[in-house]
Amino acid sequence: MPQLSAHSQGLPASSIRKLSGLAEDTKKRGIDVIHLNIGQPDIAAPKAALEAVEKSTLDLLPYGPSQGTEELRTLFCVYYAQHQVAVAPEDILVTQGASEGIQFVCAVLCNPGDEIIVPDPSYANYYGFAAASHVTITPVLSTLQQGFQLPPIENIKAAFTQKTKAILICNPSNPTGYVYSKFEIEQLCALAYEQDCFLIVDEVYREFIYDASEHYSVLRDPKWAAHTIMLDSVSKRYSMCGARVGCIVSRNKEFMATALKFAHLRLSTPTYATLATATALKAPQTYFDSILEEYQKRRAVLIEGLNRIPKIEFSQPKGAFYCMVALPVDDAEYFVRFLLTSFHLNNTTAMFAPAAGFYAQPAVGKNQIRIAFIQKEARLKQAIEILKKGLEAYCNS
Amino acid sequence: MPQLSAHSQGLPASSIRKLSGLAEDTKKRGIDVIHLNIGQPDIAAPKAALEAVEKSTLDLLPYGPSQGTEELRTLFCVYYAQHQVAVAPEDILVTQGASEGIQFVCAVLCNPGDEIIVPDPSYANYYGFAAASHVTITPVLSTLQQGFQLPPIENIKAAFTQKTKAILICNPSNPTGYVYSKFEIEQLCALAYEQDCFLIVDEVYREFIYDASEHYSVLRDPKWAAHTIMLDSVSKRYSMCGARVGCIVSRNKEFMATALKFAHLRLSTPTYATLATATALKAPQTYFDSILEEYQKRRAVLIEGLNRIPKIEFSQPKGAFYCMVALPVDDAEYFVRFLLTSFHLNNTTAMFAPAAGFYAQPAVGKNQIRIAFIQKEARLKQAIEILKKGLEAYCNS
Repeated sequence: MPQLSAHSQGLPASSIRKLSGLAEDTKKRGIDVIHLNIGQPDIAAPKAALEAVEKSTLDLLPYGPSQGTEELRTLFCVYYAQHQVAVAPEDILVTQGASEGIQFVCAVLCNPGDEIIVPDPSYANYYGFAAASHVTITPVLSTLQQGFQLPPIENIKAAFTQKTKAILICNPSNPTGYVYSKFEIEQLCALAYEQDCFLIVDEVYREFIYDASEHYSVLRDPKWAAHTIMLDSVSKRYSMCGARVGCIVSRNKEFMATALKFAHLRLSTPTYATLATATALKAPQTYFDSILEEYQKRRAVLIEGLNRIPKIEFSQPKGAFYCMVALPVDDAEYFVRFLLTSFHLNNTTAMFAPAAGFYAQPAVGKNQIRIAFIQKEARLKQAIEILKKGLEAYCNS
Repeated sequence: MPQLSAHSQGLPASSIRKLSGLAEDTKKRGIDVIHLNIGQPDIAAPKAALEAVEKSTLDLLPYGPSQGTEELRTLFCVYYAQHQVAVAPEDILVTQGASEGIQFVCAVLCNPGDEIIVPDPSYANYYGFAAASHVTITPVLSTLQQGFQLPPIENIKAAFTQKTKAILICNPSNPTGYVYSKFEIEQLCALAYEQDCFLIVDEVYREFIYDASEHYSVLRDPKWAAHTIMLDSVSKRYSMCGARVGCIVSRNKEFMATALKFAHLRLSTPTYATLATATALKAPQTYFDSILEEYQKRRAVLIEGLNRIPKIEFSQPKGAFYCMVALPVDDAEYFVRFLLTSFHLNNTTAMFAPAAGFYAQPAVGKNQIRIAFIQKEARLKQAIEILKKGLEAYCNS
C-alpha cells in the first residue's frame, strides 16, 4: 500500500463530524435532536433567485468565465456600494464559496512554511486550509471575558516573524459573534501596511449585525488598497450554502491577476449557481430586514435563556449567529456527547459544537461550546432548557 | 506592496488565454472565428437532466454532504457497472469537476517536491495543478509518429525516483486522442504495483471512442485496488461543463478516507448541479449513440480534410475529440496568431490550440497544434479549408 502525503495525514479530522455520527444514532433511537451545532440557516432564500434557475431554458451547461461573468461581478459591485465599499468588476474574482477564496489566498500569498496570524479562536476550517496549503497558523489569543474583542495590537505585532504573510480575521466572527469596530479594523490595516503584509477579512456574515454595532468593511477605505483582501460568500446571507458561490475582492491588481491564474486552472464558475446569485444580489433591503428581525428575536431568546443558567459565562453576540458559552465542565466535548447519548427532555436533546475545534490552542477553549442560534424561537427555547437541565444532570452525575 | 508566493508567480500563464484575447479583437473587426481550440461540446445535454433543475421547488440551498449524496454516488456506481467497473458508493467522492479531483489527488499523495510521471504531451492543467501543489511533473515522451501510444514501459520505469508518487494519464487522451489498450493499462497497473505508487487515470472522455478501439478502465480489474485511482467528470459526456461535477473513484480505502478530509474542508457539493447530474447519469445508451454518431461524422470530415493538406502530419484520433497535427512551420503559435490577425477566407478564420502548452518540453511540440473537432460538419470543413489556405499563405509569406 503506497504511503500518503505527510500533510494530508496531519490534516485535522473534524471532531464535529464524529459527533454528527453520534447524533444520527440518537435519532435512530427515536430521539429528536435540535441542531445548534452548524451555521446552516433555515430562512428561505430570495424567491426570485431560485426562480431564476427554475425559469432557465438552457440546452447545455457551457464553461463560464473563470473569474465569473462580467454581469455577476458588476452586480457584486452594486451590492458592495450599498455597504459603502466602492469597487470595480475587475477587483472581483468569483470563487466556489469563501472556501475556495481562502485556498486561493493561501496559495497566492504563501510559500510552504509561511505564516498567517489569526485571532484564537477562529473559524476551524482556516486551520484546515492552512494545513492543506503548508501554511503555519500563528494564533493570538482573544478571550471570552473580553467579548473576543481584538487582542491588544502589540500582541499581534509580537506574533510577526520574517515568514508572516497575512493577518486573517472573520468579521462578524464565526465562532465568536464579535463585530470588530472601525478602530480595530483601522489598527489592523495600519499594521498590515507597516509590516508590508496583507489583511484578509472574511465578511460572509456582513448582513448579520445586532443592536448598536456597525459593520466596517476592510475595503471601506481605499487608502489600504495594496494590503487588503475581502472574502465573501452568498451561503449565509441568502441561505444559499449549496450554491457554492463566493468571491475574493481586492484592489491590489497584482494579487488579483495572480489569483486569477488559480481560477483559470479550475476553469469555470458554476452555471446554475451564477444564475441564482445574480438574482439574489438584487434582493431588496426588506429581505435582509425581515431576516434580521427574526435573528434579533432568536438572539434575545438565547440571551434570556442563557442568563437563567447558573455557573456559565457567555459572550453576547454582536453579529453573525454564534454565541460562545463557557460551561462549568472540564471538557465540553464530553458534555456534548453526554447530551447525545445519555440525556433527553420530552424525548428531545440538543447538539452544540465543542469550541475546542475553533482554538489553535484547544486547551484554552476546552470548557466552551459554540451555539448557532439558527432555529426558530420555540426550538431554541427548548434547546436552552435542554442545555440547562442537561448541565444539572451532568454536573450531578 | 507585499510579495506574493514564489510558486504562484511561477504558475504558467496560459498562452491560449492570451490568444483568446486576440480572437476577441478579430471578432470586433467583424471576422467570424471558428473555435476549434477548446473542448467545449456543442451537443445538447440530456433534456431530463436540465429539466430536473427547472422542476426543482427548493426554498433554500442547504449544504450537501461533502462526499456527494448517497443517491448520486449510487447512480455513479450504476453507470460504471455499465462499463464493467464494479464499485460501491463508498469508493466514490464527488468533486467540483475533475479539476478538484486532480487537486485532491495531488494533495493526498504528494509532499512538496514529490513527483508525478506523465506522458508528454498531457492535459496542460496537469502541469498547473502540479505547480500549485508543489509537485514536480516528470514527463516521458510519446510521439505523434507513433500515434502517441504509451512510451516504452522501460522509459517510464527509468523516470522513477525515490520521490515518485504516481503515474497520471488521460484515457482517452486530451490532447492526443489516443486510447490506451488493455495491455498498456495492465502494464501501467503492474508498474504502479511494483513501484508501490499510484496509477491515476483521468477517464472523462470514456464515452468518446471510435472505430475498433475499446476503452479499458483502470478500475476494471479489482486486483489493482490499492494502487489505482480514476478521475471522472460529467462536463464532456453530458455537455455539462458548467455543472462543475466530477468524482474520484478508488477502492483504496485509506486514500478515499484522506481525500474526504479535503472534501470536508470545502464543505459541500453544489445543490443544482447534483440534481442535474443525478438525472444525467440515467441517460439511456441512445443518448451516447447519437452523440457518437455525430462525432464519428466530424472525425471523418476532419481526417478527410487533413489528408488533403500537404506537408502536415497528424495522429488519427481513436477517442476524445482532439487531433494533434504537426505543421510545416517552425512555431505553431505564430501561425495561430497569423490566422487570427492576418488571414481570413470569406470573412472567416479559425482558432486552434498551439500544442506547445501540452508539452512539458514545449520545444518538442512547437510545430504542432491540437484541433478539437467540436463543431458541426460544415463549420469543421470550413475551418480545415482555412487551415489549408492559411498554411499556404503563411508559408509563402
